[in-house]
Amino acid sequence: MDVLKERILREGSYLGRGILKVDSFINHQVDPALMMLVGREFARRFGYLKPNKVLTAEISGIAPALATAFALDVPLLYARKTRPITMPENPYRAVAPSHTKGQVVELLVSPEFLGEQDRVLLIDDFLASGKTIMALVDIVKQAKARLVGIGAVIEKAFEEGRESLTPLGVPIESLVVIERFEDGHPIFRE
Amino acid sequence: MDVLKERILREGSYLGRGILKVDSFINHQVDPALMMLVGREFARRFGYLKPNKVLTAEISGIAPALATAFALDVPLLYARKTRPITMPENPYRAVAPSHTKGQVVELLVSPEFLGEQDRVLLIDDFLASGKTIMALVDIVKQAKARLVGIGAVIEKAFEEGRESLTPLGVPIESLVVIERFEDGHPIFRE
Repeated sequence: MDVLKERILREGSYLGRGILKVDSFINHQVDPALMMLVGREFARRFGYLKPNKVLTAEISGIAPALATAFALDVPLLYARKTRPITMPENPYRAVAPSHTKGQVVELLVSPEFLGEQDRVLLIDDFLASGKTIMALVDIVKQAKARLVGIGAVIEKAFEEGRESLTPLGVPIESLVVIERFEDGHPIFRE
Repeated sequence: MDVLKERILREGSYLGRGILKVDSFINHQVDPALMMLVGREFARRFGYLKPNKVLTAEISGIAPALATAFALDVPLLYARKTRPITMPENPYRAVAPSHTKGQVVELLVSPEFLGEQDRVLLIDDFLASGKTIMALVDIVKQAKARLVGIGAVIEKAFEEGRESLTPLGVPIESLVVIERFEDGHPIFRE
């Protein structure tokens, strides 16, 4: 997705230790028009699998997942990290690494909205270690729903998350794949 | 907004103590098509004020605010509750009540994305006590940006948040106003 590569080159910045800052258009400030393009591209790539629900994790997955759900005309479901008072007491639970706290967080999904009738497309902003996505996969399994595909806006190939997801046997699509950083610049896979 | 009232009547449930559960289409599961209608309605009501940025608070404000920002063709900015490693060390900070933890949370916005050139439209899912919105107003003031309007998808009039926001002197628009609950059913303001 060339428009995304150009944006990363123009506005992204490399903070070292594999961390790409894209806070100006994805992660803190969001470019809604770009997100809608992202959503349409995911819908184009995954539509044939007939997902009836898009699942993501709060927080930064919400924008690309909402745009994808809109393009597919299906509901978005986002896993919560704390249980709101409106959530039943025994939600599906899985553990994922926390990017801000250096520890782990729980992901919680209400059984009201995910069950064996569902064909689930997972969408997230980054595919890095794959651990957050694996936690969502775990929730899909608990719900006896069917996982049909996994999409990430940006994949950091050097963190090898794709290797852990490949055995799931579903299509994995990243809109941009960063092979590595060289002198602070991302090297994209063609 | 009749489509929203109908949805609340059909799928919302009253949990007592003023708490309306709308987890099936706004707060956990999200109806993207409804959100786009919400965004277009806010754009129609606030467009004349020429906002150049939509500000909300993670988490449940993101969906309606993204749709509004898309309809207005301006960036969305969402306040974070924990500081990601990509955020500068001294962000704008304000304190808001936590709905899940019964305590308070910090809202954090990077000065990189909000400054005196900005005309800010605040959007949130609920206007209840108004305290979260006041925290966002505080951040707008710290940034020396100009607040141009406040929009909420659902207003709970009995929590009187509007009274605390009125002195700000900007238009406040709620798409649905709930006056009170009677026998577990919302009574809407006409």
